[in-house]
Formats: sequence, C-alpha cells, structure tokens
Amino acid sequence: MTRIALLGCGRIGKMHAATIVRAEGAELAAVYDPVTAAAEETGRRHGCTVAASAEEAIALADAVLIATSTPTHADLIEASARAGKAMFCEKPIDLSLARVVACRKALAGFTRPVQIGFNRRFDPGHRAARDAARAGEIGDLQQVIITSRDPGLAPRGYLKVSGGIFRDMTIHDFDLARFMLGEEPVEVFATGSALVDPTLAELNDVDSTMIVMRTASGRLCHINNSRAAAYGYDQRVELFGSKGMLISGNRRAHQVERFNASATGAGEPYLDFFIERYVEAFELGLQSFLRCVAESRTPDVTFDDGEKALVLAEAAIRSRAEGRFVNVAEITG
Amino acid sequence: MTRIALLGCGRIGKMHAATIVRAEGAELAAVYDPVTAAAEETGRRHGCTVAASAEEAIALADAVLIATSTPTHADLIEASARAGKAMFCEKPIDLSLARVVACRKALAGFTRPVQIGFNRRFDPGHRAARDAARAGEIGDLQQVIITSRDPGLAPRGYLKVSGGIFRDMTIHDFDLARFMLGEEPVEVFATGSALVDPTLAELNDVDSTMIVMRTASGRLCHINNSRAAAYGYDQRVELFGSKGMLISGNRRAHQVERFNASATGAGEPYLDFFIERYVEAFELGLQSFLRCVAESRTPDVTFDDGEKALVLAEAAIRSRAEGRFVNVAEITG
Amino acid sequence: MTRIALLGCGRIGKMHAATIVRAEGAELAAVYDPVTAAAEETGRRHGCTVAASAEEAIALADAVLIATSTPTHADLIEASARAGKAMFCEKPIDLSLARVVACRKALAGFTRPVQIGFNRRFDPGHRAARDAARAGEIGDLQQVIITSRDPGLAPRGYLKVSGGIFRDMTIHDFDLARFMLGEEPVEVFATGSALVDPTLAELNDVDSTMIVMRTASGRLCHINNSRAAAYGYDQRVELFGSKGMLISGNRRAHQVERFNASATGAGEPYLDFFIERYVEAFELGLQSFLRCVAESRTPDVTFDDGEKALVLAEAAIRSRAEGRFVNVAEITG
Amino acid sequence: MTRIALLGCGRIGKMHAATIVRAEGAELAAVYDPVTAAAEETGRRHGCTVAASAEEAIALADAVLIATSTPTHADLIEASARAGKAMFCEKPIDLSLARVVACRKALAGFTRPVQIGFNRRFDPGHRAARDAARAGEIGDLQQVIITSRDPGLAPRGYLKVSGGIFRDMTIHDFDLARFMLGEEPVEVFATGSALVDPTLAELNDVDSTMIVMRTASGRLCHINNSRAAAYGYDQRVELFGSKGMLISGNRRAHQVERFNASATGAGEPYLDFFIERYVEAFELGLQSFLRCVAESRTPDVTFDDGEKALVLAEAAIRSRAEGRFVNVAEITG
Repeated sequence: MTRIALLGCGRIGKMHAATIVRAEGAELAAVYDPVTAAAEETGRRHGCTVAASAEEAIALADAVLIATSTPTHADLIEASARAGKAMFCEKPIDLSLARVVACRKALAGFTRPVQIGFNRRFDPGHRAARDAARAGEIGDLQQVIITSRDPGLAPRGYLKVSGGIFRDMTIHDFDLARFMLGEEPVEVFATGSALVDPTLAELNDVDSTMIVMRTASGRLCHINNSRAAAYGYDQRVELFGSKGMLISGNRRAHQVERFNASATGAGEPYLDFFIERYVEAFELGLQSFLRCVAESRTPDVTFDDGEKALVLAEAAIRSRAEGRFVNVAEITG
Repeated sequence: MTRIALLGCGRIGKMHAATIVRAEGAELAAVYDPVTAAAEETGRRHGCTVAASAEEAIALADAVLIATSTPTHADLIEASARAGKAMFCEKPIDLSLARVVACRKALAGFTRPVQIGFNRRFDPGHRAARDAARAGEIGDLQQVIITSRDPGLAPRGYLKVSGGIFRDMTIHDFDLARFMLGEEPVEVFATGSALVDPTLAELNDVDSTMIVMRTASGRLCHINNSRAAAYGYDQRVELFGSKGMLISGNRRAHQVERFNASATGAGEPYLDFFIERYVEAFELGLQSFLRCVAESRTPDVTFDDGEKALVLAEAAIRSRAEGRFVNVAEITG
Repeated sequence: MTRIALLGCGRIGKMHAATIVRAEGAELAAVYDPVTAAAEETGRRHGCTVAASAEEAIALADAVLIATSTPTHADLIEASARAGKAMFCEKPIDLSLARVVACRKALAGFTRPVQIGFNRRFDPGHRAARDAARAGEIGDLQQVIITSRDPGLAPRGYLKVSGGIFRDMTIHDFDLARFMLGEEPVEVFATGSALVDPTLAELNDVDSTMIVMRTASGRLCHINNSRAAAYGYDQRVELFGSKGMLISGNRRAHQVERFNASATGAGEPYLDFFIERYVEAFELGLQSFLRCVAESRTPDVTFDDGEKALVLAEAAIRSRAEGRFVNVAEITG
Repeated sequence: MTRIALLGCGRIGKMHAATIVRAEGAELAAVYDPVTAAAEETGRRHGCTVAASAEEAIALADAVLIATSTPTHADLIEASARAGKAMFCEKPIDLSLARVVACRKALAGFTRPVQIGFNRRFDPGHRAARDAARAGEIGDLQQVIITSRDPGLAPRGYLKVSGGIFRDMTIHDFDLARFMLGEEPVEVFATGSALVDPTLAELNDVDSTMIVMRTASGRLCHINNSRAAAYGYDQRVELFGSKGMLISGNRRAHQVERFNASATGAGEPYLDFFIERYVEAFELGLQSFLRCVAESRTPDVTFDDGEKALVLAEAAIRSRAEGRFVNVAEITG
C-alpha cells in the first residue's frame, strides 16, 4: 500500500484524489492546499488528514502527487526529493526552462521515481496506436499528425499566467509527438493566429497554431491546436507509415447515431473535457506510477520528458517569433 | 454488337435506354411504348428507330429489354421467345404465379438467355459481400438480415395495381435473400402493418413488414421493409457466420461529414432513389446479360429465379393471412 | 447510506460487490454464498461481514441484492420481503412462469422497491436512443430491431439448466423490446436453429434465433440472437420512425482505426463480455435503485417487468413449437 | 454542341476522350498526339478525326483540351489562343514560372474561356464542403488541413522530369487550399524528406512533405503529402471554423464492412487512383467548362489560378531550401 500526499485540491487535484481512492494499492494519506477550504473539502470527502503545510503532508506519505499551481511545482519537487519521496508532478514542471534545468540539477543523485503528468501517453487508444506502430504494423513510421483542440477558451485570468499556448497547451502535444515519433525532433517550425479571441494578441499569445517538426532520420510531424472546437474536445493522433496508417480517434459518451432528412450517422459531440476524455488515462497513469514506486522502477514519463517537451515549446516560441525552422539544439536553459 | 429493342419508355425504360447507349457492345436498335410520345422522346434522344409495335421492335433486334408495365411482361416474353430473341425482363415476371408458371411452360425448349431484372445482385457491395461469404470468409453462413426501405410512399394509383408490398417491393428482397443464403428458404413467416399510411388497409396492403425465413439446413433470414424512410433509400444486407460478419451498407452522394455543437460525423442522407443507388448495378447487370448473349450462356438471374421469388412472396402473403410459418412447398402455381 | 446484503458471490455477484463499493450512498454490509469460499473471498476483498446464511445477511442490511443461481431467486425475494427489505434481483426471476406468478402473489401488499436486473435499460446509448424516440425525434415509432449476440457459447453445464435460449438470453431482449416499443407486444413469432452447436438439439434448444413481435397499434419488432459472434459481444438497437432512425451501437475498448493494403477504418473487436460492455449500465442501474430506496420510489424495472419478459419468452417457446404467431394473451402462469 | 479537339492521347488524354464522348453538348471533333499510334487508337475508339498536327486539330474544333506533356502546354495554349479557341489545359501550365508569366502576357486581350485542370475543385465532396463553409455553416473559417497521398511512387523517369513534388503533386493541394481558404496564402513554410525512396535525394526531391501556410487574416493551412500510401489514394480535406468542422473524406469502391476476430467495421482500401477517385470531378469539370464556353463565361478555375498555385509551389521550394517562412510576395516570375 502506497500512502500518497496530494498537494493541490483544485479541479485536477480533486480528480486525482478520486483516482487515488479508487486505485488498488494506494491510500490517500494527506492533502494540502494553500486554500484551506479546498483541502478541507477534499479531506472530508475522502476521510484523510488535512495537513497544515506541504511539508507536513509530504512527511505523512510514501509518495507525493503535486497538483498545485505551476509556479510551485519545482519547489515542491525539490522539497519532496529532500524528504526522499517518490513523486508524480502535474505538467508543466515550470514555465521557465532555466528553473526546470535548475530543478533537474537539484535532483542529481535522487533515485526514487519521478513521473510527470503527461496523461495522454496512458490513453488506451493512443497507447495502442503507438504500440502497434512500434511493433511494425505500419512499417517504417514516416508522418505523425496530432490534432488537439480544446472545447472552449479558458478564462482570461488563466491565459494571462499560462505561459502562452505552446508552454500551456501544446506542451501535451510535444510530449505526445516524442512518444509517437520514437525519435527526437531536431527542427521545429511554428506559427499561429488569434482567431478565437483576437484580443489575445495583447498578451502576445495565439489560440490557433500549426507546427511542423522533423527528426534526424527525416520523420515529419504536424501538430494543430485550437482553443475552441464547437463539437467538443478534439484529440486525434494519426501515424502514417510505409505499410499503413493508424488513427486514434475521439470518444463519445455513447454510440448512438441519428438518421433523418438532413443527416445520416450523426453521433454525439465529443466528450468534453479532459477529465472525461482521459479518465482512463489518469487512472492508468497513476497505476503505472504506483507500480514504479512498488518496484523501484523508472516511470514511463520522466522528469527528462518534462524538460524535453518544454524545450520544444521554447523552440516553437522562437520559431514563431523569427519565422524560421529552429534547430532544437539552439534552445538551452 | 448486340442490337437491343427496348419495350417500355417510362422512368425505368429511360434509364435502361441510357445504360444501353453507354454499354460497350450494345446498340439501341429500336424502342416501343404504347404511349407514343414516350417512345418518340426516347428514340429522338438516342437516335434510334421508334417501332409501331412491340413485334416490330422485337424483329429489329438481337435481344429484347422488357420494361413495360407488369401485366404485359409475360406476353412479351412469349412473343420474344417466339421470335427467337434473348431477353432481359424487368421484375416481376407477373403478379400471378399461375401466369408465371404458364409462361415458363411456354418457354420450354427455348434456349436463348432470359435474364430477370433483379438488379441488386449486381450491386458491387452486395456482390462483394456474397462472394466473400461464398469464399468462406465468415465461416458457415448462419443468418442473413436484409433492410430495405424506400424513401417515400409510391402514389396511390401505383399501389392499387402493385400486387401488394410482398409482390411489388419485397420481391427484390426475396431474390436477394436467395442469392445471399445460397440455399432455398423452406419456411416463411410474414407480418406487417399500415403505419406510413393507415388507409392502405383499404387495399388489404401494408407499408411496413417483417419477415423471417428458414432454410432446410437451418439458416435464418430476416427481411424488414418500409415504404418511407425519412433519411433516404435504405438498402443494407448483413451476413452473419461462424467466423464473422459482412455488412453491405448504404451509399451517399459524397463523403462529407459534419461536426458541430449538436452532432459529429454526420453524413449526407442516403442516395434517393433506386436509379441513383443502383446505377452501377443496372450497368453491371446489363453488361452481364450482354456477355451471356454473346457467349450463349445462362444468365446470373434466370426465369426460374423470377418464379422462385414470386413463390416466396405468395408464401409471405399466406403467412400474413394465416398467422403461421408457411412451408414453401405449399405454394403452387 | 444504504447497507446492502449481497447474496451470491459468483461472477456477477463479484461484479455487483465492486459496483456497490464504488457507489455513493451504498455500503456492502454483508455477503452470503452457499459456496463459503466464494463468500469469504468477497468479504475479505471488501472488508465486510460474511454471513452464515441468507437470512443472516438479509437481517444486517437495508436492501438485498440477489445474485444467486436462478432457482433460488423467488425464495430469496420472498424471504427479503418478509424481512421488509428493498431488493434488487438479477434476471430472470425464475424459469417457471407459475413460480413467478406465485412469487408476485406473495409480494401482494409489499411496498418497498423491488428492481429486476435488466441492466440494458440503463446503458447510456440504449437509454439515450429510447429517450430521443420518446421525445419525438424520429416521429412515430414504427420498427424496433434488436441484435443481440454473445461472443461465445456458454458451457454445456450452464446451458442444460438455463431454461433454453428464450428464457435465458432473449429474456434481456424481450425486456429491451418492451422498453423501446413503449407498447406491449401482443403477438410473438419465433424460430431458431442449432447452428453454433448442432448437439444443442439434444436439449431441445437452439443457439440462433429470429423473432418478430407486433404491438396492438401495429408496431413491429425483430430480435435476432446468436450464442457466438466471432467479433465480440454484439449489442445493437435500431429504432425506426416516420421522421428518422436511431441506432445504438457497439462499444470498443478504444477508438483506434487501422488502414493498410487490405482494409481501411478497421476498429477493435467489440468489448467482450457483458461485464465490460455494460459496466456503466450496471453502475447506473444500481444508482437508480439506491435513489428509489432512498426516496421510496418505484424502480424503473419492476417485478412486473420481470414477469412480462418471461411471458414473452413463453410465447416464443410456444411459437417455435407450433410454428405460428402466438397471441401473448394465451400465455398464463 | 461544342466540338472539342483533344491534344494528347496518353493515360489522362484517353480519360478525357471518354469523358467528352459521354458529356451532353460535347463532341470529340479531332485528336492529336505526337505518338501517332496513341492518337489513332483514340480516334478509332471514338470514331473521330486523327489530326496530323496540333494546329490541324485545333482548326477543326470550337474548343481545345490540352492533355499533352507539360513542356508543351504553354505553346499549345498560345497556339489555341491565336486560333481563337476556348481551351481546357491540364495542370500544370508549365514548370517554369517565367514561362507561365510569358504565356499570361501572350494571352492579354484573349477573352474566350481558359480553364486549368484542377479537377479536385469539382469533386462533389470537396465542393460541398467548401460551399457549406462559404455559406457560413462552420462560422468563421480558421484552419484548413489537406491530406494528399498517392497510392504508390511514380516511375523514376517520370519523377526526373516532374519538376519536383511541390510543382508536380502538391500543386493540386495548393490550388485546393486557395479554393478552400477563400483568401490568398501570404506566407509559406515547407519541409520534406525522402522516406519512401531515399534515393530521391539524388534528384534533390522528396516524397514526403509537410507545409504550413498563413493568410493575411491569419487563417492557417496545413498540407501533408506522401508519394506512397499503402491503403490507397488518400484525399482528405478538413475545414475547421468557429462553429464546427467539415471533413471531405475518401471513397471506396463499395460500402462493405467486415467484422471478425481481429477487426470490426473494416472497409475496402480506398479507390486507387485519381482517374477512379475523381471520375465525377473530371466529368463535372468538363461540364462546367462546356457551360462556360456556351455562355462565354469565365471558368471556375482560370489561368490566373494556375499561375498562383505555381507561385505557392515556388514559395514552398524556397522555404524548404532556406528553412524559413517565405512571403509569397517574394516570388516573382
């Protein structure tokens, strides 16, 4: 039984609490949130200790799940490491690559599992597609296309501190691209527009992006994003190879199709939003982490993966600013 | 080059004329229709002789395509046979089984190709499904399910002389069932309701039917019909066997799918109506007939097939009247 | 909090135990199984009392979940009623209609909720289709088609005591048909064959069935069954009406599609088996029951529904034996 | 009746001949091909004059269809213009932008219809998607994604003189992008790899490309290409807007789906190749041209469209060479 301290009891923290409680071999040992009411609500709901500080919560557990606001992640990773605890940290590690690099250095010599919350790697569909590609089912992998569109624009307050679309939203797709490509992208091109909300230009941000990446062996990868898809959360991955193609598609709440004078085969809008769409991914990701803790194994998504996704985001930012294909080696913390 | 006389220049006759003109190895030699204007329009359009009588048209050709009104079919078959011409006759041969039997007897000794217009056997989808089943792809065939729904109710005037839904509409499905089952149905159950137009009860007719048939080896077949499907012409065949299933589905004018706040993956309504849906089937059926004429071979759909489909329709009528599983052997002309 | 006694700790009992433990507002108070080891395993797993008898378990709870073997259902319903407990009983109530009628009489005056385990009514897809039809989305409902095929033949030992396919398997479809039709079937036709395993004829049973039913207003319903579908558990419902059609389709473990030189758009085989396919239905069915218990309401699936489904099964058995359209009013307990 | 002279009787010329013969209001007046045998075969097949020179063929007709090899297109356009004939010219106008500009200047003052053979604009699916987007069905258009993959690598001999993938293959997609975007792309990024056949690098060519374009208003467009898709000719267009999405998908020869122990819903490989996939587009494109000739109207795809697609190809070539987002205004003939 792994006792887990949950740091952060906001929307995603609450989801993690419920996932921990349902998981075999896990126990929610303590919760902490700077907003005391949030911590107390979660503590009451699941009957666990409400800690007065992150340190207190960490001390009560075998492993720490960090789901606080992004600026606190790196500090809490370091605090958990000092306490010798395994940890699962929500993405991104930090919006600053320099801070991530510093954190990585601080973890030097730390050997317990550190998993970053790139949940999509654990989605049964995405995982099955990647496994089939790895197993050679589509021959040599040549192209990866990731479509990733949120159902609606996040609030302005969130967007202001989000670090911009590449660090906040596309970061998931950069990680998924690396997972799917099986090679590191070495060049990145990115552009974008503020089409959903033109006033995003005031934040030097965009809500619609198109990215192209290339690996050393020549594999090509396209990512497109939008902050607002009218038909629900759109999460597709296409893997194209010399012998075929695999598409991991969207999910609906049920499989009813409608037929009438104006349409045939019309399904439900797609599941909205990530907590619903990726419910199994969150559960499988936690279970994978628990096994790594139990068996002292390296997680499927490491601190290094968190850093590398951020490097791609930085390359995209630079590419958009300079209008050129940026070599990833140019980006350093 | 096979010279063809087209008898009947109504809706389906016009379609056949266009198909003949497009076909390699065929020539529209003459047309005849008791409605002179119809014959003249078709003759003018395709630049062929407009005959003053069916006999005259028959005399000008190597083969006869009979697309006149149903009550004239048997007489024209016999006339064509007397003239020694191959023939392609639209379904049904006649609404009276006794007349069909008499016609069959009249054809005794006639050896030129006689093909009945059960076009669906030539539909590329239905044919591919049947061929795959025959080739063993789904193991032992166990169940056949045919869904056949017209896009809208035919005019009252047509329905009055149609012979009722089983002889007029289901007859296609009875033939398709035989084609798919690869065995003769030996028992037939049928029921129905007048749900589209309750006043059809005045004609002792129904517009919605459900049928179950069983072959000697125990294969099961279900047919359902409706005279009015809001979403277009619905033509599906499902073949279920010990190793899998094949479904031959509907066709749309194009492959656009729509996604919005109320639906995802919504396609066009299905092609409406049979001339559009089965355009390839009509062409392939004619080509098959032309090859049989050229090579003096027995067609894929024979006079005997026309008679057997009518026997099943008669069994269905009796079953509906008597509320029981009717043995096909009970039905005699 | 509703304390539940679980009677029966076999495959479906274990599933119910896990569902109860996950449900809000429910507590697994006690378990009982005549096979002590099964009860002890379930009790240990969920940390609840292992009762020495059904009576002892019933006494410890507010509500009883009956998941024992079929022949014990009616007795346990009566025992639970005598103890004044709400109850949820797996289908079928009993294989003997006479016993069901006697049980119904024994329940006269009992007012606490009694829910029968026809889980499919709670499937999100089937429910959404039915609700849309009830809301008039497809106009007047005219035809219902239910395809229900198990992934593989049950063991001979089970089949011998199953009561035959109509009472054991089709019973779910009879209930679903009533749920979808919104009217009582008044006539039933059924036939079948032993195609999966011809030796089932020795048990006077079949593994492949086709059924047609008709309601008083003329609505038509077709059900087809097979005991073995190579491609997984096949559970489809088609509702056809004057303005359109609704199809509630099958479910896959994920949404990956494969494209290669021999196929395009190929998905996973369907979820196998009912515990996986209907996982949400089992949860939603239990939650609905818990709300009925909490609010002293009549469940969505009553004892009466259990009896009526069995009456349709009896009508199907008689129809198959006598080869005729059986009036449901002929069937009496 | 428009009399048409067909110049070029190769694969695509033969297809055009058959299309002309089937079209209402058109007559194949003469054919010419420098390979006399090809011209004679086509002339014999359709019973038309075999001209001894392009000029002789042009003189016999009201309109000219240019389907010769690319290097001859501009000369034949100029010759046809001198003869005062309307013309339909296969894409591309020329591989050299300078030659295209010179040809455009030579056409100054010529007022008869000149249509370029970008057939995809006439595909019923692509056209319906674009019309729905223009009609506002998906709100403001924000993203266009074009997937265009050939079923197999063309012969080396063809590739050597093709002008490279951007001028030869992507040119169709550049035109389609302009058609769909409803705005001119102002910036172009392109990269690519030789993954299908690494020796293409010897020709400084690639077989796999990814392109991103941006319009003045910020609309984004992605194109991906491959010279070899194992599952058939892959031709998809996705239009994404503020209120929804439209996808124009691939076509199969028929609608049979297969279900077995390893797959469900598996369809046929896609139609292979463009003559089959775009058969309707070729017919509709010709009909549109014939109407423009008859009514002296400007065609839907003009000489200017042919030039603009080539400008985008040149921009892509420069982008790939220089690794940057190229402004279309930089490209001049």
